[in-house]
Amino acid sequence: MSESTRRQPLILVLHGPNLNLLGRREPDIYGATTLDEIDQRLSHIAAEHGVELSITQSNYEGALVDQIHRYGWIAAGIIINPGALTHYSIALRDAIAAVPSPAIEIHLSNVAAREPFRHHSVIAAVARGTLTGFGATGYEMALHYLLDTIRQDGKANGD
Amino acid sequence: MSESTRRQPLILVLHGPNLNLLGRREPDIYGATTLDEIDQRLSHIAAEHGVELSITQSNYEGALVDQIHRYGWIAAGIIINPGALTHYSIALRDAIAAVPSPAIEIHLSNVAAREPFRHHSVIAAVARGTLTGFGATGYEMALHYLLDTIRQDGKANGD
Amino acid sequence: MSESTRRQPLILVLHGPNLNLLGRREPDIYGATTLDEIDQRLSHIAAEHGVELSITQSNYEGALVDQIHRYGWIAAGIIINPGALTHYSIALRDAIAAVPSPAIEIHLSNVAAREPFRHHSVIAAVARGTLTGFGATGYEMALHYLLDTIRQDGKANGD
Amino acid sequence: MSESTRRQPLILVLHGPNLNLLGRREPDIYGATTLDEIDQRLSHIAAEHGVELSITQSNYEGALVDQIHRYGWIAAGIIINPGALTHYSIALRDAIAAVPSPAIEIHLSNVAAREPFRHHSVIAAVARGTLTGFGATGYEMALHYLLDTIRQDGKANGD
Amino acid sequence: MSESTRRQPLILVLHGPNLNLLGRREPDIYGATTLDEIDQRLSHIAAEHGVELSITQSNYEGALVDQIHRYGWIAAGIIINPGALTHYSIALRDAIAAVPSPAIEIHLSNVAAREPFRHHSVIAAVARGTLTGFGATGYEMALHYLLDTIRQDGKANGD
Amino acid sequence: MSESTRRQPLILVLHGPNLNLLGRREPDIYGATTLDEIDQRLSHIAAEHGVELSITQSNYEGALVDQIHRYGWIAAGIIINPGALTHYSIALRDAIAAVPSPAIEIHLSNVAAREPFRHHSVIAAVARGTLTGFGATGYEMALHYLLDTIRQDGKANGD
Amino acid sequence: MSESTRRQPLILVLHGPNLNLLGRREPDIYGATTLDEIDQRLSHIAAEHGVELSITQSNYEGALVDQIHRYGWIAAGIIINPGALTHYSIALRDAIAAVPSPAIEIHLSNVAAREPFRHHSVIAAVARGTLTGFGATGYEMALHYLLDTIRQDGKANGD
Amino acid sequence: MSESTRRQPLILVLHGPNLNLLGRREPDIYGATTLDEIDQRLSHIAAEHGVELSITQSNYEGALVDQIHRYGWIAAGIIINPGALTHYSIALRDAIAAVPSPAIEIHLSNVAAREPFRHHSVIAAVARGTLTGFGATGYEMALHYLLDTIRQDGKANGD
Amino acid sequence: MSESTRRQPLILVLHGPNLNLLGRREPDIYGATTLDEIDQRLSHIAAEHGVELSITQSNYEGALVDQIHRYGWIAAGIIINPGALTHYSIALRDAIAAVPSPAIEIHLSNVAAREPFRHHSVIAAVARGTLTGFGATGYEMALHYLLDTIRQDGKANGD
Amino acid sequence: MSESTRRQPLILVLHGPNLNLLGRREPDIYGATTLDEIDQRLSHIAAEHGVELSITQSNYEGALVDQIHRYGWIAAGIIINPGALTHYSIALRDAIAAVPSPAIEIHLSNVAAREPFRHHSVIAAVARGTLTGFGATGYEMALHYLLDTIRQDGKANGD
Amino acid sequence: MSESTRRQPLILVLHGPNLNLLGRREPDIYGATTLDEIDQRLSHIAAEHGVELSITQSNYEGALVDQIHRYGWIAAGIIINPGALTHYSIALRDAIAAVPSPAIEIHLSNVAAREPFRHHSVIAAVARGTLTGFGATGYEMALHYLLDTIRQDGKANGD
Amino acid sequence: MSESTRRQPLILVLHGPNLNLLGRREPDIYGATTLDEIDQRLSHIAAEHGVELSITQSNYEGALVDQIHRYGWIAAGIIINPGALTHYSIALRDAIAAVPSPAIEIHLSNVAAREPFRHHSVIAAVARGTLTGFGATGYEMALHYLLDTIRQDGKANGD
Repeated sequence: MSESTRRQPLILVLHGPNLNLLGRREPDIYGATTLDEIDQRLSHIAAEHGVELSITQSNYEGALVDQIHRYGWIAAGIIINPGALTHYSIALRDAIAAVPSPAIEIHLSNVAAREPFRHHSVIAAVARGTLTGFGATGYEMALHYLLDTIRQDGKANGD
Repeated sequence: MSESTRRQPLILVLHGPNLNLLGRREPDIYGATTLDEIDQRLSHIAAEHGVELSITQSNYEGALVDQIHRYGWIAAGIIINPGALTHYSIALRDAIAAVPSPAIEIHLSNVAAREPFRHHSVIAAVARGTLTGFGATGYEMALHYLLDTIRQDGKANGD
Repeated sequence: MSESTRRQPLILVLHGPNLNLLGRREPDIYGATTLDEIDQRLSHIAAEHGVELSITQSNYEGALVDQIHRYGWIAAGIIINPGALTHYSIALRDAIAAVPSPAIEIHLSNVAAREPFRHHSVIAAVARGTLTGFGATGYEMALHYLLDTIRQDGKANGD
Repeated sequence: MSESTRRQPLILVLHGPNLNLLGRREPDIYGATTLDEIDQRLSHIAAEHGVELSITQSNYEGALVDQIHRYGWIAAGIIINPGALTHYSIALRDAIAAVPSPAIEIHLSNVAAREPFRHHSVIAAVARGTLTGFGATGYEMALHYLLDTIRQDGKANGD
Repeated sequence: MSESTRRQPLILVLHGPNLNLLGRREPDIYGATTLDEIDQRLSHIAAEHGVELSITQSNYEGALVDQIHRYGWIAAGIIINPGALTHYSIALRDAIAAVPSPAIEIHLSNVAAREPFRHHSVIAAVARGTLTGFGATGYEMALHYLLDTIRQDGKANGD
Repeated sequence: MSESTRRQPLILVLHGPNLNLLGRREPDIYGATTLDEIDQRLSHIAAEHGVELSITQSNYEGALVDQIHRYGWIAAGIIINPGALTHYSIALRDAIAAVPSPAIEIHLSNVAAREPFRHHSVIAAVARGTLTGFGATGYEMALHYLLDTIRQDGKANGD
Repeated sequence: MSESTRRQPLILVLHGPNLNLLGRREPDIYGATTLDEIDQRLSHIAAEHGVELSITQSNYEGALVDQIHRYGWIAAGIIINPGALTHYSIALRDAIAAVPSPAIEIHLSNVAAREPFRHHSVIAAVARGTLTGFGATGYEMALHYLLDTIRQDGKANGD
Repeated sequence: MSESTRRQPLILVLHGPNLNLLGRREPDIYGATTLDEIDQRLSHIAAEHGVELSITQSNYEGALVDQIHRYGWIAAGIIINPGALTHYSIALRDAIAAVPSPAIEIHLSNVAAREPFRHHSVIAAVARGTLTGFGATGYEMALHYLLDTIRQDGKANGD
Repeated sequence: MSESTRRQPLILVLHGPNLNLLGRREPDIYGATTLDEIDQRLSHIAAEHGVELSITQSNYEGALVDQIHRYGWIAAGIIINPGALTHYSIALRDAIAAVPSPAIEIHLSNVAAREPFRHHSVIAAVARGTLTGFGATGYEMALHYLLDTIRQDGKANGD
Repeated sequence: MSESTRRQPLILVLHGPNLNLLGRREPDIYGATTLDEIDQRLSHIAAEHGVELSITQSNYEGALVDQIHRYGWIAAGIIINPGALTHYSIALRDAIAAVPSPAIEIHLSNVAAREPFRHHSVIAAVARGTLTGFGATGYEMALHYLLDTIRQDGKANGD
Repeated sequence: MSESTRRQPLILVLHGPNLNLLGRREPDIYGATTLDEIDQRLSHIAAEHGVELSITQSNYEGALVDQIHRYGWIAAGIIINPGALTHYSIALRDAIAAVPSPAIEIHLSNVAAREPFRHHSVIAAVARGTLTGFGATGYEMALHYLLDTIRQDGKANGD
Repeated sequence: MSESTRRQPLILVLHGPNLNLLGRREPDIYGATTLDEIDQRLSHIAAEHGVELSITQSNYEGALVDQIHRYGWIAAGIIINPGALTHYSIALRDAIAAVPSPAIEIHLSNVAAREPFRHHSVIAAVARGTLTGFGATGYEMALHYLLDTIRQDGKANGD
């Protein structure tokens, strides 16, 4: 579907490095749910609410920045789990700060209870809000929050 | 109602110092919603789901610790906005760590975008999860998360 | 006297933890004047200027926060010696920042000449001004400053 | 018994926040002994030596400060486990420094082997001595030390 | 007047770098009062109390040190606003520490609420006391404090 | 044009992450000029001086490194605005250090007046020089500097 | 060869940013051996021992992460010289930690004798072991170590 | 020429401590050009563009502050190489911040490649822009930038 | 007595550098009791309880490590005052961690009230417990604690 | 054998404090191999290659320094596991830096994955190279590296 | 005497801020000897050895820099007690580094035993040597050292 | 000679680790003079002044402490070059602080101009004075200083 004919509000979902391994990687920390399962649940909820999702996982910082540049001007919101980039990607921070779409930062695990270098996010200060430690459910909570925002803003039927 | 005859699952809601001023205090940071309005919304949602709430606001660290000691063994969850205590009350942290009820830490504003001394939480590492920057809505997101947990655990019909 | 009938401007005086021991505690650091003597001097000056004082000493952070919540909306000024809370009570800081009454921070001793942990005040940034090292006289200097403010603002004959 | 008629030397015992949960809270760290059992052992030893104990547990910093203010001028010693307040309560430190009774600081667990924020005590510099890691036995060691002090000072038969 | 024939007590007033721009420089921070106006007010008050003032503004650290060396042995007090030198001039600190006259450190603005590098004073530890945030009034408060000291010491009629 | 037949000296121009948004992104910080406009001005100046430009913008650290590897051995100079990579991309630093072409580091805004994490550049130590705060003009200043270098070195007519 | 029919054990060799310049870049630090020569030596040794190598050099963090994701589940070991990414790529660290293949971290130069920012590796804690300062020989030492491991584990004749 | 009759725009040039030794002092760091040669080049360029220069070199912080106070209200710009004062003279910083003339900070050498204490400038945050590492040419680049500004502002024919 | 025929439980007592000067060295800090007197008291108590002591004082880190290696496998406990080695001897720490005998760390003075470099112990984390500030009595308290341990473990009649 | 008649090249092997406990001490960290077994393996390999080993284990920093002084001028290499001295023995560092023999630093465990105080080596900067985390095998890898060096240098047949 | 006819070698003696107060200022720290007495002793010794002294005390950093610029090219040595400037005057450091005359840094008191901010000298790294804690005698030791240098260099009879 | 019959004053000379290599070790830093030559010069000077020297070099911290314990009560002074122990041997510091003999700390090289870890001395605060950067001459300067002290104290004819 071309962007010019878009009727449904759009929400951008971004998964940072290593999140493609979800369910397979350190399941005691990250849980057994796979990224596909998360994406399907989100797509199901979005469909129920007449909202389009654009979902990208990438291990490249540049690819995530590119997606924010592309959709950050038109999306009703961004749900982003920056993965390891949380802690050093000022490029990602600057991309989020540059665009008008509000971003929700997600972390599956409770990063405050892990290694000290995981306690600081360079992203958080430019996010609308942050959800940490709720596992895969956190994505859904963020989506519901954005859906509420859309409802309140009447943006859902934008054109 | 005596505790021994409790039938409904209980969720403990704790508001730390200065949160009684909500709606009246720096509304550009904390929003215009009052604490009463938040509590009423939470009570309404809880009632709909057959869950009892115990809600306390206190400017005394000790009073918050006392409530955690009283209900932290039986509650299905704790929703706590520690306010300024977030940044130094190790006593609150130890209380949360001491009891089995899972705690959700809430911050109305995006603390990562404020003064540096607000960037560190001594509570977060012992919380199940943290919600930051969602304003009054954050409390509802936390409550819904705990209600889901109750549903999944079948704890709602405990006795 | 009920608040609704108050005619005289009010100044809130707050003494933090351990200040009740004044005169008795480490007199080489804090001087031989007792807190009662300070309070009497302040009351005498206030009476001469037709100003009411509300004076509280407490070893509880919560009690000091409560007083600020009660009077910080109507008082012409707050004179506060936070004692040890100076160095960690962000709750006290937030309470002062939340109310419109201007606060003057007082320290009897020259804290900059004592242990390093006494060099930093979490309160100072939200105070109107700070007086350090003038002993009991500092309270009177602060009171005279606020009395001047009242005179200039014509607040003394508020109703 | 009124203080004026006191004949027996007095030792003040103070338990800080969360210590009321002893035996119930993280027993692998704090042991299975309850606070009641500790208090009973101490009372028994004290009684054998003709010494009175004043024992307080509180989750309020202010309440602990108040007790030190009340008894710190007459007690032959203070046994204090400040709990979490160890790490930030400068008010407690100042209270101990303000009174003549010597204080013994107790920690049940070996705090040096736990989280970094537990490695620093703001109390220790004003205590007479510190006992760390001896579990419930630490209290008894402190009491025996103070009983020895009383014996040597002939304070046991004070009046 | 030669120093040997001085009859009136002397108070030294020192204004550090950039204070000559007062009223003209960043008035939202430093106020609209000029240095001349401040000096005139102080001179008026001093004359009323039979006290001589020696007032110097300099952008040279060395000139301020020289003045302290010249008058710091005979002045009843020093009122100094070190301006930017507050934060690094250990030479000024050493000069103040070297002479017997007590020094009062003044800052027009609330430095604790400004850039972090303005939070630390290398002077404060050797001052008798510090006044911060009271604007031009702070000078008068300091002068009144020293006048009181002179009265109490009977130094005003020194010879 | 194949590299072997190059006659004109070459200058490499690199724009880091998010600079493609120039003119559109936070114009109060970065100005209203677009990257295209900057590139056109630079191309115009270069053409006037008989110098070829190779211009790349990328949100991928690796792409910028690749360009430096390709042209850093033959270019008369590199003009690089590393964007957010300034603060953490040691890979970019190592690439610049590895090649003989001198690099000029450009920042549009005065990074020293922004967030603390923008005060440190990992690139600066291996650059020939740095230009900060001159907006789009900074690029032209850098280009003129390199053109002067070429003139002086006689490199402009290399073959 | 498809992965399903692989008979030989596999070792993954990864070279980070700028290592493609080896021999050409700062030869006094990194030596005169080229990356091709290193790869050929490793391939020769591997062939002698019946082990397959998968060798990748990339200036893209994401490309290195991708390779670890692809081979880290089946390789008998990973030999990685992360180059500049050593010091900040938590994404690389997380990728290594996520997969079961043991990783050996290699540095050509003695990083401890270079700039302070090169003294810390974010990778080392998740590597099996680290080899620093042995130049191109370090790769061969790592390969021999892994070949020994394969021999001991009997993995060499896996199927 | 009296200031009241000035017709030409004025640019203030300030050289800090030790810059009088230029050409004679550590020429491998600072180059062989003398300060006189730099000043002559600048004067020549200024004369060509009908702009007056006021040039001062001083080893006294106070003398540099005085010059900024004198000309900072009327000059079209300030070109300042603060020398060693870069790293600690908050007085110089405050002087520049106090006056409306925009300041360009110059460093001959690439300070980021020298001792760590030279990496931080207390001046940079209040400068319009900074030029580092371009040697004597840096002064000319700054002058050309200011001349452009004058041209654009039409300030050159001010009265 | 050969180790094989030992019947009595053994406690190892170790005194670190400079403790041989006890009674002679800075008696206001360390007290007037000599090390011989301490050792005699300990020996007397040990003899009363049928326990053998092995006592060593050494100014050599290596000698203390050697003793721990020799007796740390068979002793019922180690009483160690590491003296200055407390603050840097990781070798001593590792020795204590390597052997099964529990170690009690003793400090005569209240190190927390002395120079900052004495506030950190590299030993404490591997000790069973620590006694600080009780002077020579601290050794006896430690010995009594270990004797209790022996009694409870029934180790006293080992063979 | 006197040194003057030595024909075989010599390699010095040094084991620092506590390494004599190898196999017996925390085997989950350090492995089950004893130091004797390591030494025998090394001796066997050395003998095969016609190289003499001088092996010393000591818990005394001074003894290790003495050995380096004795053999560091003639040995073809030094293999040293400094144990705990790694982190503070600048004396050992200086000894290694003082002699011409190249030193290889060995650590059995992956120190980067252990306590933070084990992350820094004061030795590494003066070592030729470092091997960390390879267990007992690391010694053999270092020996093989030095044997290769000897072969290449033709030092093996020195006289 | 004009410089061109100078026959005697010259030594420059510089006393920094507040040293003019010597003997009068905190004599327990700085001793009772006055600066005049020190200068006379030095002059006497110099005269005996046929060496000319140029002695300056100034409270102005700039004046000290000027003296170094004037004499630092011809003096056989510089004896400098930078006073408080020791800790922050990078201008003084740069002046000393810029001239060929070797400088000896003197401190009357043992600065290492005083406040922490006195422990660091920005001058020391560019001095030939430093003498700390020898009181007024330190100047003489420095002078004798330089006289020895002159003797050895045969500089004493320069022309 | 027994200590009881000693007639000559004694000065203790201590050389720390690696100083035995003097002349042989990094001569560009430490000079070409050997330790024997230094000791002979010192002995010659001492003999001329009727003073006995006790000279020890050791690579063992314990041996240096032992010597201070033995002679520190009777020596007229201690000249100590602690070598690398300067930076961490608190045991040496405590030994010097424990004895009445004044200690002079010597460093051959200008440690302030070397690696950062050499900038801090744990010894300096308890030394009488420090001499840094004068090479072998520093020892003689210290000896002359102590000889002067002896002359002034008349200690030379002690009995």
